[in-house]
Amino acid sequence: MNGMNIGILVIGNELTSGMTQDTNSSFAARELTAQGWRVSAVMAVGDDISAIKGGLDYLLGISDALVVTGGLGPTADDITTASVAGAFGLGLYTDDTVLRRLKERFVGFNIPWTENNAKQALFPGGAVVIDNPAGTACGFCLERGGRPVTVIPGVPAEARRMLLEGVIPLFRERLGSREQVLRRTIKIFRLTESQIDQELTREDLAIPGVTIGFYPRFPQIRLVITSRGEDAARVEENLKIVEQRITDRLVDYIFGYDDDTMEGVVASLLTDRGLTLAVAESCTGGLITDRLTDVPGSSAFLERGVVVYSNASKVDLLGVPASVIEEHGAVSEETAVLMAEGVRRLGGTDMGLATTGIAGPAGGTEAKPVGTVFVALSSGGGTVCRRYQFRWDRRRIKEMSAQIALDMLRRALSGGDMLT
Amino acid sequence: MNGMNIGILVIGNELTSGMTQDTNSSFAARELTAQGWRVSAVMAVGDDISAIKGGLDYLLGISDALVVTGGLGPTADDITTASVAGAFGLGLYTDDTVLRRLKERFVGFNIPWTENNAKQALFPGGAVVIDNPAGTACGFCLERGGRPVTVIPGVPAEARRMLLEGVIPLFRERLGSREQVLRRTIKIFRLTESQIDQELTREDLAIPGVTIGFYPRFPQIRLVITSRGEDAARVEENLKIVEQRITDRLVDYIFGYDDDTMEGVVASLLTDRGLTLAVAESCTGGLITDRLTDVPGSSAFLERGVVVYSNASKVDLLGVPASVIEEHGAVSEETAVLMAEGVRRLGGTDMGLATTGIAGPAGGTEAKPVGTVFVALSSGGGTVCRRYQFRWDRRRIKEMSAQIALDMLRRALSGGDMLT
Repeated sequence: MNGMNIGILVIGNELTSGMTQDTNSSFAARELTAQGWRVSAVMAVGDDISAIKGGLDYLLGISDALVVTGGLGPTADDITTASVAGAFGLGLYTDDTVLRRLKERFVGFNIPWTENNAKQALFPGGAVVIDNPAGTACGFCLERGGRPVTVIPGVPAEARRMLLEGVIPLFRERLGSREQVLRRTIKIFRLTESQIDQELTREDLAIPGVTIGFYPRFPQIRLVITSRGEDAARVEENLKIVEQRITDRLVDYIFGYDDDTMEGVVASLLTDRGLTLAVAESCTGGLITDRLTDVPGSSAFLERGVVVYSNASKVDLLGVPASVIEEHGAVSEETAVLMAEGVRRLGGTDMGLATTGIAGPAGGTEAKPVGTVFVALSSGGGTVCRRYQFRWDRRRIKEMSAQIALDMLRRALSGGDMLT
Repeated sequence: MNGMNIGILVIGNELTSGMTQDTNSSFAARELTAQGWRVSAVMAVGDDISAIKGGLDYLLGISDALVVTGGLGPTADDITTASVAGAFGLGLYTDDTVLRRLKERFVGFNIPWTENNAKQALFPGGAVVIDNPAGTACGFCLERGGRPVTVIPGVPAEARRMLLEGVIPLFRERLGSREQVLRRTIKIFRLTESQIDQELTREDLAIPGVTIGFYPRFPQIRLVITSRGEDAARVEENLKIVEQRITDRLVDYIFGYDDDTMEGVVASLLTDRGLTLAVAESCTGGLITDRLTDVPGSSAFLERGVVVYSNASKVDLLGVPASVIEEHGAVSEETAVLMAEGVRRLGGTDMGLATTGIAGPAGGTEAKPVGTVFVALSSGGGTVCRRYQFRWDRRRIKEMSAQIALDMLRRALSGGDMLT
């Protein structure tokens, strides 16, 4: 199984014209790589018979299996099924079960049936149908010289489910894989790629069957541990060992696992402890509360937020004395502390979080250049404030400041070390 | 020139492993398509000599020109230059001018020079250097059987500039194009794709040399008009005619052109008129002020924002009577109107904007299901409020609500029709 090469062909004029950004192929590449397979090449071609045939031929020449997505809809420009059949010299047949289910679906949704939809029940001779649990277009699998060629729709939500639930199990079965694959994602913030890289090359992480990948997405990094092997118990144990070793060393920088988000983790910590929060934002402009309110049920802990862009609003809404702003500046430790304390007092909440900074591009001085940001957190135990100096553009300064503020709150709530 | 086929090859293990989402190829596809050319295929391969050679051979077989990106860095896994040279049986030479500039750059940035960097001054025999105005890795162009093969770095900011400033002009010159290409983007909100599609098929838009593409990105749509031809005056005139005809018919739905954003347009309208704004957000949770504060200089008009998630904060911060909330609900026209009026009064601003709604997944009722949103705008002329019913998930309800609110403000400021 290892060393198996898989080719990915994505089909659609919207891709070769740049109208749509293809995300299916990188999702598929990630999932196939996680299985221990290698992606030989990814190709995108338009809805064009000869381009599709050319792509299939080329990829089959360098691959042990293919994943093809797109062009399975009911309209005239969806020609993938016919093109694949044509490329392999196969006729088309109607799958009666699929046709019946399609018609039932139309009745169920109260949509009038039109004959062009019957096209979605056509498959190349010898193809095995791959169910679509999320839409009308079924996929199919053909075998060419012992190599499976799987074809699924291009709608991302459908393609993703069918890849995970249909294609990968099918590849594993056809290829006689008895391998188990387990995965664990560790979410990391405030370590650089090179610091992580250094951690990952440590000898005690070199366990056979375990690979570790890392996927930076500003401002955080995902570490993905994949454990593979035929012995299910061993696969699970290996995963746990590596996860534990990484966790032990990087615990200060790990904010969550798998589908966790920073705002979701903070929301859970607050909700679980029955604590309430008020937020005063200057440079982050509402981004902190925007993220927190993405979490369903956030009204349980978020009492209020204020975006105090003017000095008057800092005075009115938070009770920051005008004299402090005049003496130390709106962007200062003194102001940040009073903002956090003020919003906590006025909201009557357990915690108060505040940001003030210079997001640029203008407004910097020598003492406080663009990217200077103060983050303060007030609670019953007192108030802490940290000063940061970021580079990057306005948006990234906002994103990093919001992330740092949420992380400060997370650390305080989980009793962790409050990094500077 | 028309009918010219261009192949795109993107190189990097981070692409075939799915670690990084490739965006260069869709950018290139869009720009090449805008020139009136066709993308024959896009291929992604890893940093592997035989995969690169295979990709080059295949794409050259179906294309009149190639764009290759990625793998031009100084590290050992950057093997694109050597692979391209190898594929075409060419030796490598050092370009002394490039080498000197590289060394100067290192001195300028005060970084010690290491010999591996000299690799970035190596080019295949016969190659013409393509300048990199944004980084250290120069690109190059080779000719194979009259077909230009251009190679540029994979760093998106560098790839984009070099494509526009180096590759496309070079293709045009090599291929003897005397065509002029002009483009205009129209930004549209509150029309569906099928409504736009219907507009675009109108006979009076069918002008030779003019094409219109549309690129939906929730919650808005970009319309791109491209005008091409050898007569510069005619090209410009055609573009203007089509732009004018579309503008005349869709004026109510057009919020900007080219690089305009909704928040940027609103910011300009407020700043130009010297008007100030305060925002009270419930269901949008800070997203409106987050977007407005992405615009540099937003402190000129944004006095304050409040995220009034609790009923107490609606009473405290906005003066909404508790009895109104009790009688009509926090999500009601009555509350929305008082929120907009309250935040305007308390901020002492010209305009007050407010949102309240049920973003879900819980909290809906039969009378006010999930997706019910009220948006209110208060100004010297009075207060307007609109009720909307959205479907979609929590995040998209927030995004659509914020966009609708900003659009309501834009319409009010530009004297346009206030759509329901």
